[in-house]
Amino acid sequence: MTPEKQLQEHQHWMRLALVEARQAAARGEVPVGAVVVAGGRVVGRGSNRVEDLPDPTAHAEILALGAAAGTLGDWRLNEATLYVTLEPCTMCSGALLLARLGALVYGAPDPRAGAVSSQARLLDGNPYGHALEVTGGILAGECAALLQDFFVGKRNSGPAEG
Amino acid sequence: MTPEKQLQEHQHWMRLALVEARQAAARGEVPVGAVVVAGGRVVGRGSNRVEDLPDPTAHAEILALGAAAGTLGDWRLNEATLYVTLEPCTMCSGALLLARLGALVYGAPDPRAGAVSSQARLLDGNPYGHALEVTGGILAGECAALLQDFFVGKRNSGPAEG
Repeated sequence: MTPEKQLQEHQHWMRLALVEARQAAARGEVPVGAVVVAGGRVVGRGSNRVEDLPDPTAHAEILALGAAAGTLGDWRLNEATLYVTLEPCTMCSGALLLARLGALVYGAPDPRAGAVSSQARLLDGNPYGHALEVTGGILAGECAALLQDFFVGKRNSGPAEG
Repeated sequence: MTPEKQLQEHQHWMRLALVEARQAAARGEVPVGAVVVAGGRVVGRGSNRVEDLPDPTAHAEILALGAAAGTLGDWRLNEATLYVTLEPCTMCSGALLLARLGALVYGAPDPRAGAVSSQARLLDGNPYGHALEVTGGILAGECAALLQDFFVGKRNSGPAEG
């Protein structure tokens, strides 16, 4: 595949992750969304539901990985790619390794809690030894704008969130 | 509370985490169990269900934190203590921080994947700044024996697991 074709494919799937992120925003949650793709189709989706459930572990990535494993009938996701609108945190980076995920594609970096390249590099030195390809910055502007709009709206409409 | 009384209390709750771990063993899963305690009662339980669901994120801690947040109606678990039979991994350590957990008590260390004191110290330098008290080694022998029995049994009865 040419690099241009590869980029178009990444953008295509990232747009579906953005659909999930907008659903989180519509529920008043931090807008992060994810899809897991295997064999050319979406096998799992996730949208941040920490407030909704409530569940501190209900990040988009965790929900999408669980859904994908359910669809494929196997917790090992070596052939799958996770697309997520925001750089994964420590919990989610650990989950990608446990899932033996094939590839990660993310949108915006997370300077505060990102554990792939911002605050830590937890995917380097993979303890399970499988190849995990990482691509960042796909539709980063759109992914970040969604988050910025959410936090600006929150600051203007309610009490400060710790 | 005297140190002796504190130890007895930790052992009491760890025995309930061991009950969860034995349920995982009975299902043929790596035997790890967890309970979340708040206000003197169990508000969430979890037993490793990675193979059962299947879901790579279905560690005992993740399930117990989610259950506790559901019971309490809040994803912030500042007043709660998680008891787990094995030192948490990277994913679960990240989850404890996200949950703003008050205290962690674990049983056996995990030399291979433990992210609290063995392979990493992810709970040091807590990015959310809340106090997270950590105690390790409670009923460590019993917790480790359960895991050793499981892996010895697996080695003797089936193909090697990667």
